[in-house]
Amino acid sequence: MTAIAEPLLEDIERRLLSMPPVRALQLRVLGLEEGRLQLWAPLAANVNDKGSAFGGSLVSLMTLAAWALTSQRIEDAGLDAEVYVADSEVRYLAPLLSDLRAEAWLDEDASWDVFLQTLQARGRARATLHMQVLLPDGGVATSSRSRYAAILKRA
Amino acid sequence: MTAIAEPLLEDIERRLLSMPPVRALQLRVLGLEEGRLQLWAPLAANVNDKGSAFGGSLVSLMTLAAWALTSQRIEDAGLDAEVYVADSEVRYLAPLLSDLRAEAWLDEDASWDVFLQTLQARGRARATLHMQVLLPDGGVATSSRSRYAAILKRA
Repeated sequence: MTAIAEPLLEDIERRLLSMPPVRALQLRVLGLEEGRLQLWAPLAANVNDKGSAFGGSLVSLMTLAAWALTSQRIEDAGLDAEVYVADSEVRYLAPLLSDLRAEAWLDEDASWDVFLQTLQARGRARATLHMQVLLPDGGVATSSRSRYAAILKRA
Repeated sequence: MTAIAEPLLEDIERRLLSMPPVRALQLRVLGLEEGRLQLWAPLAANVNDKGSAFGGSLVSLMTLAAWALTSQRIEDAGLDAEVYVADSEVRYLAPLLSDLRAEAWLDEDASWDVFLQTLQARGRARATLHMQVLLPDGGVATSSRSRYAAILKRA
């Protein structure tokens, strides 16, 4: 999969920034490549008492990356659905002392095609996504595995 | 355990609000009773695209409740330590369409006395805490189980 067109990234960013708590994160959409949606947020707006990234902001950014990726796949397929996070596991592996860069991708054992076919056929579908926030050296600061549910809207 | 004195609640609130992302939540400390620290935040500042509470804000409020409770216990014991969240499991059980009320408490199989003795003796200690965000009817919107680590600061 190649990089996504700029106007589409702007659509994703506009959708995310319509939520007041997301504006507080000062989030930006970096891109969607190789099936991974990448978001960014500045440390200054998301810093804790220790000068590192606040756990709530790390989870927010990861949750939004997975939610936006799932929503975008549904929209790309011409469907209209609400997307909900159902549950999450989060591991805080190392403190992050720089800006936040999160990415989300679909579980390797799943496929968007099957997810979208299920959603269309049954009106609902579930997907497991993986997310991480990266350290500047390419290591992982925080990782998460979350399940999302999508429910088709009535026409 | 009885309700805690007002000035102490103000200390907890001031500590939390020193972090920019916490100010964005518009968080308030409600009280500390029966070993449970309760925080509050308005829906308007924490609303998602569906008009319900944003998942990232729910996690932020729960994470802060457990972090502040643990920090307060350490300070009450006359110790000085950094408190880190290590990992979390979060279950989003029902959408919340009103203001957020989160509470955190120590796992029933643990005791603050043992945690604090371990911290003093070994310089570090771990605690498992439970958190939830309540529905207006008293049900649970979101629940979490998280592990926190405390590390004594060098004098």
